Amino acid sequence: MRRGTNLLAVGGFNQAVVLDLIRRAPDGLSRVELARASGLSPQTIGNVVRRLLDDEVVLETGKQVNGRGKPRTILRLDPRGGYAIGVHLDPALISFVLTDLDGAVVARRIHRTPVAVSPTQVLDAIERAIESLLAEAAESLAVPRERVLGVGIAAPGPIDRERGVVDDPPLLRGWSEVPLRDDLARRLGMPVVLEKDVTAAAAAELWGQTGHDGDDFAFFYYGSGVGLGIVLDHAVVRGASANPGDIGHTIVRDSTEGGVPCECGRTGCLGEQTSPLRLVRRAAGAGAGAGAGGGGGVGAGVGAGAGAGVGAGAPSADVDDPRALFDAFGALADRAEAGEPVAVALIEALGADIATALVRFADLLDVDRIVCGGPFWEPVERLLLDRVERAVRTSPALVTPHPVRIVSSAAGADVTAVGAACQVLDALYSPRPANLLLAAQA
Amino acid sequence: MRRGTNLLAVGGFNQAVVLDLIRRAPDGLSRVELARASGLSPQTIGNVVRRLLDDEVVLETGKQVNGRGKPRTILRLDPRGGYAIGVHLDPALISFVLTDLDGAVVARRIHRTPVAVSPTQVLDAIERAIESLLAEAAESLAVPRERVLGVGIAAPGPIDRERGVVDDPPLLRGWSEVPLRDDLARRLGMPVVLEKDVTAAAAAELWGQTGHDGDDFAFFYYGSGVGLGIVLDHAVVRGASANPGDIGHTIVRDSTEGGVPCECGRTGCLGEQTSPLRLVRRAAGAGAGAGAGGGGGVGAGVGAGAGAGVGAGAPSADVDDPRALFDAFGALADRAEAGEPVAVALIEALGADIATALVRFADLLDVDRIVCGGPFWEPVERLLLDRVERAVRTSPALVTPHPVRIVSSAAGADVTAVGAACQVLDALYSPRPANLLLAAQA
Repeated sequence: MRRGTNLLAVGGFNQAVVLDLIRRAPDGLSRVELARASGLSPQTIGNVVRRLLDDEVVLETGKQVNGRGKPRTILRLDPRGGYAIGVHLDPALISFVLTDLDGAVVARRIHRTPVAVSPTQVLDAIERAIESLLAEAAESLAVPRERVLGVGIAAPGPIDRERGVVDDPPLLRGWSEVPLRDDLARRLGMPVVLEKDVTAAAAAELWGQTGHDGDDFAFFYYGSGVGLGIVLDHAVVRGASANPGDIGHTIVRDSTEGGVPCECGRTGCLGEQTSPLRLVRRAAGAGAGAGAGGGGGVGAGVGAGAGAGVGAGAPSADVDDPRALFDAFGALADRAEAGEPVAVALIEALGADIATALVRFADLLDVDRIVCGGPFWEPVERLLLDRVERAVRTSPALVTPHPVRIVSSAAGADVTAVGAACQVLDALYSPRPANLLLAAQA
Repeated sequence: MRRGTNLLAVGGFNQAVVLDLIRRAPDGLSRVELARASGLSPQTIGNVVRRLLDDEVVLETGKQVNGRGKPRTILRLDPRGGYAIGVHLDPALISFVLTDLDGAVVARRIHRTPVAVSPTQVLDAIERAIESLLAEAAESLAVPRERVLGVGIAAPGPIDRERGVVDDPPLLRGWSEVPLRDDLARRLGMPVVLEKDVTAAAAAELWGQTGHDGDDFAFFYYGSGVGLGIVLDHAVVRGASANPGDIGHTIVRDSTEGGVPCECGRTGCLGEQTSPLRLVRRAAGAGAGAGAGGGGGVGAGVGAGAGAGVGAGAPSADVDDPRALFDAFGALADRAEAGEPVAVALIEALGADIATALVRFADLLDVDRIVCGGPFWEPVERLLLDRVERAVRTSPALVTPHPVRIVSSAAGADVTAVGAACQVLDALYSPRPANLLLAAQA
């Protein structure tokens, strides 16, 4: 907890600082600019850059002429210097991405999560999908397997990050103490890191953000469940057990305002209020249009974004199946967009409940930006983003002395899978002061 | 945001690491033990220790004999190596502490906050109290003024930490844009740092904690208002504007459960539910015993702890005066302790509401420890600590995969003032990886 630092760690830290500066400069940087931006000496910059060139993660690309001085060589990240695989295991969909060193997606797969099968069968499906992704990348993109640094996998909590185990997620039926990380690492023969889904989503946003954004933000994750990823001081918060962000029991609605009972015994909990299953059933119960069982056809592909649905089974008519639920929720959003009153009312209440919660999180965490994303956010984004922003801005309960921006994730539907891949890149390349702490000797 | 590090900063960092290790070892440490615990080389330890001895912040105290090896000299912090002043500006009380380098309180003052006077008159009173504290410390404790490193001042938010200004705290009437820090620094001729009260309280707890505690905790602050200090990765969270921890609008009670309206328009907000003013008025409205106006005599001194009340005016009979409120709240706690049903019911509901909120914070932040403190916590601590702990432990809404301990602040009633003093010590001596980041060159 309290450890010193040495030159070896500082060298790695400085290398990560330089790489990160280069990565974040769209037009590249010269060695002189790197020294100025980092505070490091020209000698140190020279040594670090030489190492990065040797490792083929940085390229020299052209010269910059400044007045009468010597032209400066411009350095850019070589995105092909390394790759990472990200997997997002959602109860409804499993998304796979292959990112380059810059975190940009170069290939993707979206599968529907197999239901009513054992975790081993899910692992089989994940392994097959990754192998097929790797084969495709090797063939069509000439990505050699040895340049793939590892696999990040994002799963619903609670997880045991240290042991790499998915504990007993309420939304993955039949999963209990599944050693996801080690099983997958053994199958694939490459390093695997496990992360909670909301934490991965926040990490993707942090990885992709530009220098204009502040160091703190929250990520509101709307999936089969809700969660909040937290980034403070430019680092993802992992908490005591890597399971932060559980906001399902945040109370947002009084029973006199239509708050519904939660299994915890209270009324108006955010998880229950925003539950896609509840909303779809409520819409069906109201008897309007394509209800609970009828959404499959309408919503197929909604939210997938990439459209590369491989192996998707026929959607079940039972919304208790997470895959059919996803489709039915997309259909509900479509109905609201078309102005159907029941759907509009449900979606507006959803926005109000989300805003009520976000105001509380902004007050507690003193963040000036909340990013919204996750698989169920995309179908309702057009309907809700402005509405939620306005409700937060005008809330009498917002007491922070600064404005709070509400934005949609820049990473889109892939955000969580990209965030999982970023865990791999991050471990290797991101400058985190905490990495300076040496392991205490025995 | 992204800057490098150099040997100069690393030297300071390592010095802080060593000083912190020595400070936290009650029996002292040898140079060999320091090398082992820090991961630093014996040479580096030797150099750092020499500097600390020269600065008179560390003492060599005796030898440790280990088998047949050379006896090892034991190093201990010299608490008299430096001092800091902490001021806690609460609407009801102003607490002053003088701490040594170890953060231990060596002298204290508690004043009632002057009411219905200008901020300048409050500043006059603060200046006089600090000068009198310094004079007493010089005379009876032989503390030379030049060994006092600075003043930390904790105030209700919102504050503008960078400008050292107290913005417009709802609980300090007549305060608006008061440049507290610079005014006080000019008056006293020493550095002053301004911090939000809940952040200071969390910092005191962090400063005082032993190695057995984890890196993450939350501090539930119960003063004239409520707040939550957050410590993640062994660092106090300051957020985007140094104003985190606003939890007053956390909804904890449905209207069907007796939730009361809040000025924000919702029902059952934590700030209103736990408002000492509301509870005291409710107790008075119930017509039982010493009500709203009658608590002054009973509660005098309750919660002050030190009993060094200097300059306390006669408590007003109006609980709208924060000083009388504090006394009346103490009286309410006394009545509950005596078993008076109305008081018991109010205090039990208070405990239930606090627990409901703490469960949500534990779920969100993934902390395994919540420390309770602040001026209004002490009067109810005996009544509530076990009750809140049990309610949190058994809550169906608690979803973290680990137990959450609820404890009272180790620093007691002085916690916020001590935390303010720790800001001064912390800036000089605490190893924080973020301090390794150099200022970018212009």
